[in-house]
This record gives sequence, C-alpha cells and structure tokens, in this order.
Amino acid sequence: MNRRSAVPRTVEWVSEAPDGLVPGRLRMIDQTRLPDELAFVETADLDTVWTAIRRLQVRGAPAIGIAAAMGVAAAVQHSRAGDGTALLAEVQRAADRLATARPTAVNLFWALERMRRTAAQHAAEPPDVLQRILVREAIAIRDEDAAMCRAIGEHGATLLHAGDTVLTHCNAGGLATAEFGTALAPLYVAAQQGKPVRVIADETRPLLQGARLTCWELMQAGIEVTLICDSAAAQVMQEGRIDCVMVGADRIAANGDAANKIGTYAVAVLARAHDIPFYVLAPTSTVDPQMANGAGIPIEQRGSEEITAGFGRRTAPAGAAVYAPAFDVTPAALITAIICEKGIARPDYRASLAAFLRA
Amino acid sequence: MNRRSAVPRTVEWVSEAPDGLVPGRLRMIDQTRLPDELAFVETADLDTVWTAIRRLQVRGAPAIGIAAAMGVAAAVQHSRAGDGTALLAEVQRAADRLATARPTAVNLFWALERMRRTAAQHAAEPPDVLQRILVREAIAIRDEDAAMCRAIGEHGATLLHAGDTVLTHCNAGGLATAEFGTALAPLYVAAQQGKPVRVIADETRPLLQGARLTCWELMQAGIEVTLICDSAAAQVMQEGRIDCVMVGADRIAANGDAANKIGTYAVAVLARAHDIPFYVLAPTSTVDPQMANGAGIPIEQRGSEEITAGFGRRTAPAGAAVYAPAFDVTPAALITAIICEKGIARPDYRASLAAFLRA
Repeated sequence: MNRRSAVPRTVEWVSEAPDGLVPGRLRMIDQTRLPDELAFVETADLDTVWTAIRRLQVRGAPAIGIAAAMGVAAAVQHSRAGDGTALLAEVQRAADRLATARPTAVNLFWALERMRRTAAQHAAEPPDVLQRILVREAIAIRDEDAAMCRAIGEHGATLLHAGDTVLTHCNAGGLATAEFGTALAPLYVAAQQGKPVRVIADETRPLLQGARLTCWELMQAGIEVTLICDSAAAQVMQEGRIDCVMVGADRIAANGDAANKIGTYAVAVLARAHDIPFYVLAPTSTVDPQMANGAGIPIEQRGSEEITAGFGRRTAPAGAAVYAPAFDVTPAALITAIICEKGIARPDYRASLAAFLRA
Repeated sequence: MNRRSAVPRTVEWVSEAPDGLVPGRLRMIDQTRLPDELAFVETADLDTVWTAIRRLQVRGAPAIGIAAAMGVAAAVQHSRAGDGTALLAEVQRAADRLATARPTAVNLFWALERMRRTAAQHAAEPPDVLQRILVREAIAIRDEDAAMCRAIGEHGATLLHAGDTVLTHCNAGGLATAEFGTALAPLYVAAQQGKPVRVIADETRPLLQGARLTCWELMQAGIEVTLICDSAAAQVMQEGRIDCVMVGADRIAANGDAANKIGTYAVAVLARAHDIPFYVLAPTSTVDPQMANGAGIPIEQRGSEEITAGFGRRTAPAGAAVYAPAFDVTPAALITAIICEKGIARPDYRASLAAFLRA
C-alpha cells in the first residue's frame, strides 16, 4: 500500500538502504506536540520507543502496536548475534521491555507477540535475513491496519452523499491508527473520491481529542472541519446542520451495544431525537462475542485532575468531588449501523455481527 | 432581610456608622479570583466599582445592578454639594459613568435609572438626608432581588424530595444575584429546611461557570456537589442518579420557550429521553411577552478563543474554524414547569405565564 495518504503517517518505517529495510528507523508523529506543531520522533533506539509509547507521543491502540513492532525490528537490526537463535533471544528481550510501556493496550501485546512468533518461526535463518524478515513483519502489521481502515472507509463512504456534514466525537482518526482511522476513514475516502464532505467535531472533554487531534488531522487533509463544544451538539442538530454521526468504538458487545469515549451515548440520544443516523465504525476485532450486551462492559473511571485542572490551570475548587467516567455505552437500539472492514452490519446485530465474525 | 445567607453575599453594603448607612462602602466577592480564593473588592470609589463591573469581578445581571446602585450611593456620600439639587447633579454624573461599564446588562441601566429617579424625587432634601436615602435605595434593590430569589427558591423547593439529586447547568446561583440565585435557590431553601439534597453540576464549557462558580458556592454552603463534564450528563441520567434538572434562563418567550447557556437544550432533550423532570427557574422579568416563541430570540455568537485557548493554553490548531453559540433555546414542550417568584407555571405556558405577568 504505497499510495500517499492524505495525512502524514502516524507511524512509518524509513530507510535509505537499497532494499528500504535495514538499516532503518521508525518515524512517529509526536502527538504530544499537536496541535501546536507537527514534529516527529525518529529513532531506532528501544528506550526512545518505550518512552514515546509511555508518554503518549504515539497513542491509539493500533498505532501503539505498530510502533512497538517496528521498535523491536529496529532494536535488533545492528545485533552481532552469531545466529538466528541468538537474535531470537534479543527479540524476546526487546519485546519484554516494550510490553511494560503501557498496561492496557491490547494491540501492544498482540503486535509484540506476533514479532516474537515471527522470530521463532525463522530462527533457523542467518541473522541478517531474520533482521529483514522482522522489519517486513512490522511493516505488514502497519499495512494490514491501513488496509482494514481503508476498507471501513470504503464501506462507510457509501453512506455519505456529496455535501454531507458529519458530526464526530473524540478522535478515531488516522492519528490513532496507521493511516485513515475508523470513524474518520469514510471522510478520507469520500474526499479521495471527489465527494465533498464536511465535519463538525465535538471538542471532547476532558482531554479534548476532538479539538487537538481530529481538527488537526482533518485540516491537514484539507477536509473542512468546524470545532464545537460538546454541549453544542444538540444545537447544531436542531439547526439542521448534521446529516449523520460517525464515531469509533472501544468495545462492541455481541448485541451491538458499543462502548466509546464519554459523551458518545449523549450524542446517540440527541441524534435519535433529531432523526439523524448514528453510525459506529470499528474493526471486527472490536466485537467481543463473549459479551452478551453492554451492561457487562466495565467503565473506567479517570482521575479528577483531568476535569479540575486539565490544561495547566485549576478551573474548579480544590477538593471538588468529580465523577469522571472515561467511557459510556450506547445501546444497540440507538445505532443505525455498525461499519466494519467486512461490511455494514444492520440490526439485528446479534446476527449481522456474528456473520462478520464467522466470515 | 437580615437572615444570614448560606453563602457569602455577592454584593453588600458595609458601614460602621451608627445608622449602618453613611459613611459606608460596597463589598463584592471578586469572582475573577474564584475558585482559587475567596477575595473581596471593598471600595467606595466610583472608578473601582466601574472597573469591577468591567472586569467581571462582579457578574450576573442582578448583581451588576446592585453593585452599580451601591456604587452611585458611595460615590456621592462625601459630597460637599450645598443642596439636594447639586447632589442630584453628582448622582447623574456617577450614573452616567457606571452606565459605560458594560454594554448589554439591562439590570445595570435599570438600577442606575432607579437611583437617578430616587435622587430627583428627593432633591428638596438636605444633602445629608438625600445621601442616606440613596444608600437605603441601593440596599432596597439588593433586598428585593434577594426576596425574589428566595420566593423562587421556596416555590422550587416544593418540587424537591429529601435525598433528591438535581442536575444543573451553568451558574444561575447566588454569585449572579444578591443571594440565592434562581436555579440554585430551591437547593438553598431545601437545605435550610433540613431537606438533604445533592447536586451534579455540568462544568459548562466554554467558560466553565459550573466548575468555577456553581461548585464553589454550593461547597461554601455545605451542599453536596459533584462536578461532571457536560458530555457525562446523559451517562449520569442513564445510571439513575438524577431526580430532576434545574436551570436558569436568560429570556423566556410568551409560549414558554426558554433561552439559556449553550448546552441547556441538550440537557432538556436528554432529560426527556430519560423521563426526568426539567425545570426552568427565573423571575417573571425574564419573560418577554412580546416574543411569541423562541424562534425570535437572537443567539449571540462568542469568540473562538474561548474554545480554542480557554484554559490559558492553545488546545486546537491555529486557524481552526469554530462555531460558538453562547445560548440555545429549549422548546416549551421539553419544560416540565417554569418556576417564578409568583409561583409554578405549568403548560400551557401562554396562559400560565400571562397570568403571572398580570398578577
């Protein structure tokens, strides 16, 4: 997948070598410096990758997994290991180290496991061959994620008409993934198809991912975006400005109930009240077939400081009690469709999502 | 009205004189220093009062009116005018000056006009008598506002049961008025009646009046309050935590449509979806009988910086397009009741509000 993406790539492998593989390094957008400036972390050093993941310079579960995989490949590329088995041991040590960078991102462990398995499968190869195999595997993880996002975008774009305005919440965009994101993917695809679309982005308190990240990446891509406070979503709907809502999901139950950033459920209720389609966009890996419905999805509570002193200034009284759920669950009944890389699931989701998981 | 209020008074007249009137000065809570610290502006100087109004050290239309009236009284209390007519001229100059402090607060002009009229009516009195009349008039403006808020609170408190939790948006509390506020008045009254009530306060982006002011004044009064992001209102409703919503209003049309801080309409839609009563609390002076319905209420647009750099740090890309309506209009159909100082209006509001205006 060598087509240029509309936005700078969140994580990529760069190399001046003839084969484009070794020696090389990862280049990541430093998301802690957005939206003030577009800066990159460019490194082949394991500790620098570890720090980038830890400090959220790279964020979003798929992007973290890609960075970790490339980090392992970079860490062992100059190894003096005498054979593949010795190199495998170095891969294990690098993966062990990166696995400690973030505690909960499932993609991190999944990507590291895939790098370990690849090294083990090819441990009979000479080190210089294995080094190249590892870089190729990391790039494959990136490309597979990009292809999945693109497929979500292509399915989702069929739901958009020229001139539509889409409301989105939080950032399920390219910055969280390899390239196109999930909720924003249909917008990038529509733009590439020459179908003009516009976005209204909820700022998404408390951490303002909508303001900081969604606005930034859409502006980079030349897609018209307007920022609103979360509390203005009802007003823009009432004014007739919104044609549909597109959001991501952190976990989807078997019945279609979808957990996503706090505020998503509010948007779903408001969309229903204004007769506006509400779409959830996520890969099928987000669907948890063991979870019958959303009631079982645990809701993480965040620290109060994100609300009382979120951007360098105290904005609530010291000692104020705060309730800060990080996620909410939108019931399937409020979701018009769930768009995955395998197609568009409609109610009854228990049947349509199960069909995707079997496919 | 000498009962101690539960919160420090937003604006009051203080004097060590035997009659408690002259010489004296105003004391105002410096709201620009909340919630970090409770500091006061205490002054008898006209320019200091002007600056306090201009810089929002005192804010909220009723509170501004009271400060201006007391400012006029303070400014002329040491006058060497030879007679009441000369003192009247000084009152006019002081009122002219304060009228330039804020452009749109109707209560400011109304209160200044009342001070001019009082001075004119009593211009035959000797200056020392007229000076005391003016202080008494300013205190009367304060006391009338406090009584009106208390009446709203007493009517509103009949809607609350012991143990209820009330969701509120923005700050229609004591800091905007003389004492009890409007939306928060029932909570203060219920607390004084020994009826325990709790509050969940929307932080109220962009200017965070809920976080900065509502939390502060309720904590001062010992009323249990929990701060949430605006986007979490639906979640706390869905969890069954909210017994009713109480909000203020900036303008109410003859049919009951109510304009209030942006986000109020969203809360009303969410309350209806969760079958939770939604109450608007405001004095009858807020009702505009010339405005048939809310469609005619102009919606002020605010500057984008309040959203893109509201916390002292830029949190959106430079040049991001922003849509920032300051208010929205909640249709009467979503309002369970409108509570005024004259009682509780129920639908049909065209009839019930008209009856209040005639009373």
